[in-house]
Amino acid sequence: MARTRKPELGVCYYPEHWPETIWADDAQRMVEMGLSWVRIGEFAWSRIETEPGQFEWGWLDRAIKTLGQAGLKVIMSTPTATPPRWMLDRHPDMLAWDAAGRPRTFGSRRHYDFSHAGYRDEAVRITSILGSRYGRDPHIRAWQLDNEYGCHDTTLSYSPVARNAFHSWLEDRYGSIDALNERWGNVFWSMDYQAFDQIELPNLTVTEPNPSHAMDFRRFASDQVVAFNQAKVDALRPLTDAELLHNYMGRITDFDHFDVGQPLDIATWDSYPLGFLEDRSDRDDAFKYAHMRCGDPDFQAFHHDLYRAVGRGRWWVLEQQPGPVNWAPHNPAPAPGMVRLWALEAFAHGAEVVCFFRWRQAPFAQEQNHAGLLRPDGELSEGGREITALAAELDRLPGDELPPARVAIVFDYASQWAWEVQPQDRQFDYFRLVFDIYCGLRRAGLAVDILPPSANNFGDRDLVFIPGLFAWTDALRGVMQNFTERTILGPRTGSRTEDFSVPDDLPPGLSGITVSAVETLRPEAPIELAEAGSLQIWSEQVSTDWVVLERALDDRPVRLRQGTLDYWTGWPDAKALDRWIAQLCEEAGLAMAHQSGSRRIQRIAQGHLAMDYITSQASFIE
Amino acid sequence: MARTRKPELGVCYYPEHWPETIWADDAQRMVEMGLSWVRIGEFAWSRIETEPGQFEWGWLDRAIKTLGQAGLKVIMSTPTATPPRWMLDRHPDMLAWDAAGRPRTFGSRRHYDFSHAGYRDEAVRITSILGSRYGRDPHIRAWQLDNEYGCHDTTLSYSPVARNAFHSWLEDRYGSIDALNERWGNVFWSMDYQAFDQIELPNLTVTEPNPSHAMDFRRFASDQVVAFNQAKVDALRPLTDAELLHNYMGRITDFDHFDVGQPLDIATWDSYPLGFLEDRSDRDDAFKYAHMRCGDPDFQAFHHDLYRAVGRGRWWVLEQQPGPVNWAPHNPAPAPGMVRLWALEAFAHGAEVVCFFRWRQAPFAQEQNHAGLLRPDGELSEGGREITALAAELDRLPGDELPPARVAIVFDYASQWAWEVQPQDRQFDYFRLVFDIYCGLRRAGLAVDILPPSANNFGDRDLVFIPGLFAWTDALRGVMQNFTERTILGPRTGSRTEDFSVPDDLPPGLSGITVSAVETLRPEAPIELAEAGSLQIWSEQVSTDWVVLERALDDRPVRLRQGTLDYWTGWPDAKALDRWIAQLCEEAGLAMAHQSGSRRIQRIAQGHLAMDYITSQASFIE
Amino acid sequence: MARTRKPELGVCYYPEHWPETIWADDAQRMVEMGLSWVRIGEFAWSRIETEPGQFEWGWLDRAIKTLGQAGLKVIMSTPTATPPRWMLDRHPDMLAWDAAGRPRTFGSRRHYDFSHAGYRDEAVRITSILGSRYGRDPHIRAWQLDNEYGCHDTTLSYSPVARNAFHSWLEDRYGSIDALNERWGNVFWSMDYQAFDQIELPNLTVTEPNPSHAMDFRRFASDQVVAFNQAKVDALRPLTDAELLHNYMGRITDFDHFDVGQPLDIATWDSYPLGFLEDRSDRDDAFKYAHMRCGDPDFQAFHHDLYRAVGRGRWWVLEQQPGPVNWAPHNPAPAPGMVRLWALEAFAHGAEVVCFFRWRQAPFAQEQNHAGLLRPDGELSEGGREITALAAELDRLPGDELPPARVAIVFDYASQWAWEVQPQDRQFDYFRLVFDIYCGLRRAGLAVDILPPSANNFGDRDLVFIPGLFAWTDALRGVMQNFTERTILGPRTGSRTEDFSVPDDLPPGLSGITVSAVETLRPEAPIELAEAGSLQIWSEQVSTDWVVLERALDDRPVRLRQGTLDYWTGWPDAKALDRWIAQLCEEAGLAMAHQSGSRRIQRIAQGHLAMDYITSQASFIE
Ligand SMILES: [Zn+2]
Ligand SMILES: [Zn+2]
Ligand SMILES: [Zn+2]
Repeated sequence: MARTRKPELGVCYYPEHWPETIWADDAQRMVEMGLSWVRIGEFAWSRIETEPGQFEWGWLDRAIKTLGQAGLKVIMSTPTATPPRWMLDRHPDMLAWDAAGRPRTFGSRRHYDFSHAGYRDEAVRITSILGSRYGRDPHIRAWQLDNEYGCHDTTLSYSPVARNAFHSWLEDRYGSIDALNERWGNVFWSMDYQAFDQIELPNLTVTEPNPSHAMDFRRFASDQVVAFNQAKVDALRPLTDAELLHNYMGRITDFDHFDVGQPLDIATWDSYPLGFLEDRSDRDDAFKYAHMRCGDPDFQAFHHDLYRAVGRGRWWVLEQQPGPVNWAPHNPAPAPGMVRLWALEAFAHGAEVVCFFRWRQAPFAQEQNHAGLLRPDGELSEGGREITALAAELDRLPGDELPPARVAIVFDYASQWAWEVQPQDRQFDYFRLVFDIYCGLRRAGLAVDILPPSANNFGDRDLVFIPGLFAWTDALRGVMQNFTERTILGPRTGSRTEDFSVPDDLPPGLSGITVSAVETLRPEAPIELAEAGSLQIWSEQVSTDWVVLERALDDRPVRLRQGTLDYWTGWPDAKALDRWIAQLCEEAGLAMAHQSGSRRIQRIAQGHLAMDYITSQASFIE
Repeated sequence: MARTRKPELGVCYYPEHWPETIWADDAQRMVEMGLSWVRIGEFAWSRIETEPGQFEWGWLDRAIKTLGQAGLKVIMSTPTATPPRWMLDRHPDMLAWDAAGRPRTFGSRRHYDFSHAGYRDEAVRITSILGSRYGRDPHIRAWQLDNEYGCHDTTLSYSPVARNAFHSWLEDRYGSIDALNERWGNVFWSMDYQAFDQIELPNLTVTEPNPSHAMDFRRFASDQVVAFNQAKVDALRPLTDAELLHNYMGRITDFDHFDVGQPLDIATWDSYPLGFLEDRSDRDDAFKYAHMRCGDPDFQAFHHDLYRAVGRGRWWVLEQQPGPVNWAPHNPAPAPGMVRLWALEAFAHGAEVVCFFRWRQAPFAQEQNHAGLLRPDGELSEGGREITALAAELDRLPGDELPPARVAIVFDYASQWAWEVQPQDRQFDYFRLVFDIYCGLRRAGLAVDILPPSANNFGDRDLVFIPGLFAWTDALRGVMQNFTERTILGPRTGSRTEDFSVPDDLPPGLSGITVSAVETLRPEAPIELAEAGSLQIWSEQVSTDWVVLERALDDRPVRLRQGTLDYWTGWPDAKALDRWIAQLCEEAGLAMAHQSGSRRIQRIAQGHLAMDYITSQASFIE
Repeated sequence: MARTRKPELGVCYYPEHWPETIWADDAQRMVEMGLSWVRIGEFAWSRIETEPGQFEWGWLDRAIKTLGQAGLKVIMSTPTATPPRWMLDRHPDMLAWDAAGRPRTFGSRRHYDFSHAGYRDEAVRITSILGSRYGRDPHIRAWQLDNEYGCHDTTLSYSPVARNAFHSWLEDRYGSIDALNERWGNVFWSMDYQAFDQIELPNLTVTEPNPSHAMDFRRFASDQVVAFNQAKVDALRPLTDAELLHNYMGRITDFDHFDVGQPLDIATWDSYPLGFLEDRSDRDDAFKYAHMRCGDPDFQAFHHDLYRAVGRGRWWVLEQQPGPVNWAPHNPAPAPGMVRLWALEAFAHGAEVVCFFRWRQAPFAQEQNHAGLLRPDGELSEGGREITALAAELDRLPGDELPPARVAIVFDYASQWAWEVQPQDRQFDYFRLVFDIYCGLRRAGLAVDILPPSANNFGDRDLVFIPGLFAWTDALRGVMQNFTERTILGPRTGSRTEDFSVPDDLPPGLSGITVSAVETLRPEAPIELAEAGSLQIWSEQVSTDWVVLERALDDRPVRLRQGTLDYWTGWPDAKALDRWIAQLCEEAGLAMAHQSGSRRIQRIAQGHLAMDYITSQASFIE
């Protein structure tokens, strides 16, 4: 769980994109720049296995040797995110289908269906072959499995192949079709089935499908990613002692990262602060404008903390944006200093390695407008210059283990799926709810740990938040009951059974509170509180014998308490959230350090890192 | 035509959703709450006929007996809106196709194509079987046929089955392909056909299809609903003396409700004031915000009046929202008092029965966030409490016949289809035009009757409005010419022939006026009138020898009069409309009672019902 | 290249739409109105060839005779834009497919795939038959080939037929699949192909396709239009001495009009100022509101100048809007005087003929709300009256040759495709960039010529603009280097190779400037200049030894100069553009005449035409 090494930098490199004559020079320049790691190979299948069973090892052998002998540690990748074109002749039905019922075609990447057994075997095959060849190569110090699972909406496939696999998955889960009918409540609209193979995927229904049906499809789809990854781990693990990792993305929630990450040694993620601000943030235009050259001051930190949990303490950034990217609606250049700040922030959150994407900007194909450390002509880019300077600073970074945070939030992928299936309001989004609370804690200057819903205990913490949890497990409820400090629940926590029904005794499944009704709110219509702030989007009507800590202006109970448990009956806006967090901290004797605007701090072993996103300043303070 | 019974309340109930052990208690509680009617069975096919030809009557027999013996009158439903999954094995092509050319799948409801002869036979079969078993059961006092025809865009299907049925329909209408070519004007773009079976459905054309083609498809689709319903009526009528009804929806205009309702005894509709405000109203956000807990003050009234016409005087509310629903973009709770107000308003418009949806909130499947009279745990909900109190008020309600209104509007479903086919402006919508005028009349405190275009006479009225009529029939023109009081026509009235051509002598088909050109207007660009108000969206240029009552600032004639006829050359905004209605009332000696804001009155036999939507107040005043 | 005839007017006529008994009267009225030309036949295939091989010539013979003998010059059209329904029985796969992978059906027009060899043969066949019959008819003075190529998104088809044709096209271009892999950079994501027939069309890929792939598809699609047109020209040319033309549309850029126009004698276009403002302009609502009755003051002029280039000096307006149309989101009436103004403007830009669409408004089919010179009942419309008066003015128009403009802009269709493939910012659009500069020149009162990228020289001009050019050809670079006056380049000029790669020495391919990075900008985030104005959307970082004429407030170089070349590193807003143009004019000794608001002038042989769009005034000033 501990950081065992001094912070290191690295880069993503594609020897197959460049003449072999410049590899040695590239490698030397990497080393001179202060980089330690180089990732290769993740899109090279068509150049490794040029025809089925015909391999070209020479170039790859030489590339590894060149890089390794220059002193670089190599991360080898299995190229399964980009099967060659000939693979489709062997498996014509291996493509995923979109929700509109159309096969998605060859010509870019991630063109496979996680459910396709034939392709899964091919992925295992190429993984085994690579593992056999390079598993004991001393230059190969880590293995990346596939690339960015789930990116480009590839977790969910509506293909006939997926439909068949879903039937097997359902049969495993329910045993009998009668059990499925009963647990889904198929009596509701005469949706009873006589056999598993009658069940369609839940797209293109006349109106919304049964939420139990849709939820099981989401679980099934996540499980296919888990199984695909596990099969590759099983193939590779016996062949190498190097560490296994995968590079996740930002705000991809279609599969359970805790499950996928379980057999891996390290979690890594690909951090594109400016691209993500533009293409997947809920922030409004004013916020995006203000942060267009620095990114959201909390988005990276959240994912650092999330993937630290996925990696059970061990995590890297495997791709970091070094300049403008090519894929967002607008692609500005980072402000000077931001590439450094982002990297330092990652280290402050415990990253072992920060790699940049990519070494030299590619002049051809899809990403020719994506900056690298070098320009296409080999000159240093702005980002490259900043990274060169950063490398010289690495010694000043603390190498100590990151201490646990006093505050934690439970993040549950299944809850994301559940509330996508049943939002009850156009604005409701589980990630946004969790992220809102995370941002509130960060504005209070608090370090935060993310916990999986399968946590064995909440550890030595003062505050644990479990907002919006879809369904209790007995285990999680037990962990909470054994926790002697404060747990903050709600809104919507524990509001469904695992079968996606309202619990018999109504939510939230805690004795003494009953959520008797729920209403959702237009954006113009928050529920005003008696003190500063309001509830937005979601508000519950409760009957309770808990202590009412606060009521809304219209007298509805808003915060309730019994023993170590607090319950929030609605979604607080930022003003209410800041006020509530301040009160919780005071009660817990937890020191706050209010961060205004774009300033943030991250507590580290000794002292903290102080950052200001808007001004691009970052400095370590003892 | 008269209200023959004292106002009654009822509820929708699903015995198949609950353990048989609680049915008797449920029934007793319904009676104690003051409910008289209970609707059952409309989604129960999979539990009645568990496999083709294998019936489970026991539970249903016992449910009817339990409810009936408790004193409730039972509305039995034919479950044809939710054919069981095994039906698709018998009729694999029975699913409707969407406009994008995709079959819509099993897994929710209304998964059938009205054109499918095989499924129509199955629907008749189950209807006959149910009728034979329960048609003479004394507890069964009414029959609901299917459920919410047309909901979820199910009237229009673009399937091969629909295509074939369309060919037959066209052949019946035109006799020869030459006649069709001539009447459609297929010479226009070389669209001539040699045979009926060459004709595609009008989706996925390169640019817009021939409007005659598109209009006939809309007529055809409506006729399929009519035929489907008629087949079921024909099957059931000989088997029962109970009344037959269907439950229509709000603002569903894809089929002609007058035609469907013709063989039925009673028209009913499903009234969801908050859901409809959010998901199908043209109102702006400010209006929706102000009315988020009460609904649009005119939307329910309009449908009450519309369905009173569809039911030839006899109508019910079969589902009324008792609390938050689950299906709109935002789902707030009704303000206290609104459930009562909505029910009283329905009675004031002549409803015989108001039923609520549903008895107990379902903890499973699609509507688990839809409130009922009971919570899932069996406790009374807020709505349930309000309905209990309302039941005690029923004695105070007038049971007299509703007097005819002095003012009427002709509502023509075909005009809705025509102007969807040929809007000429993104903003033009027939329903909105009619509803605008209706709202103006309601602001003037006037009771309004809706008339079908097939009305034999306009009755004893002072004002009849016929806005936006697609095409004159000789009959309707004759009725108007025989009417001795004032008829108000335009804009766009009589502007096409039945074949969807411009009439030879140009619109509006009245001697002495010629609409020589039409223009449509950006929202920022109304035509200002000399007095208060303006024309919006639509403005006609006319040459006329009628008296010009009013001109726009730019001198274009706006209101014309000859004898008993007025013609409006454009779509008035609310200011102009209020002014014009005031003038018409004064001329007609019709007493107005101006209603400001969200206040409305409805004239009844003795006195009137005064309501304020925003404050949730409703009281009967002699 | 010279205007050889006095300006003439004409009209589009459909004898097949009207009883033969009125043709003679129609013809006489046309002549009396001052019209010289009449276009017929372009949608009449189903009435000419009623079944395959069965022809009905009588009506067409008589129509031509009637029109010709009345003194009208006839433009005969080949009816290939509307193949009859029986054609689909002969070629069931002739329909184009949309980007969602669906065949687009029969029932409107342009229902054919340009790649379909069978249909191309049919088009040649009917063209030959018509040419044989009427090619030497003295009344036929010109031939229109097909109608509005590319309208309704018909250039791009994703059909299996197109896929096969694309394979052949690629094989012709690359010779070997290895060459294609190399030049596309398919190594990037293992996209290497083993054979041409493995290549899919670039729709429905998982994420964006390779831009080289997408760009070649765009070139291929354009070439199919060129080939289709060429085949018809080849068939017709030997059969007639009359001039051949095609009627292009406004802002259709999916095919290269210079290529299509090469074998034709005259370019014509269909000018719908109000419709185009509403349905294809980038202007904001305030602008559209202000110009809703007059149109964009620069949009028509731009297309006049563009199509003058396409026609190598010879061009007409073949359809001009005479009143409200039926197909835009809003369809207001033109202000009085605008029909005249638009026609005079066309003549001032060198049009030989202006025809109006259409003679008599059709009462049936798709365009029954589209105004004509006559109303459906045969009375003159408003537009008809205005045109009658205009005809009397024609003598006052200058018949002289239009002098070349001092200023020119290179317009390159391939650049439009390239930046649609790779916009790098949601707002980037090549047409908009060129049009922005054009508008700036027009505000300066300058006449502008458009040049194709294949121009042999820039002629006798003072300023030539080449903004946003995708890729240099050696020829164009040579022409520029030989040009002794000023050329203004950038932004984004020369930024890719023909293979869609970043050039080895980085853009813009001019010695002494290197674009080292690019950023794109949110609309709220322009780069402010030190003087008035700012850069928007696009900004380049350059290293250069050119003279820096101007820097932004943040010091980035904005305008660079070396010798005769200027380079702009970003997209100027209107303020910056006006300032820069003023400076360029001053340096070039070019007289400006600043035009405020909606006023515009067009220099002609003697004097100029002064127009004010908003007030509808237009007058010739010596
Ligand atoms: Zn990546
Ligand atoms: Zn319902
Ligand atoms: Zn046209």
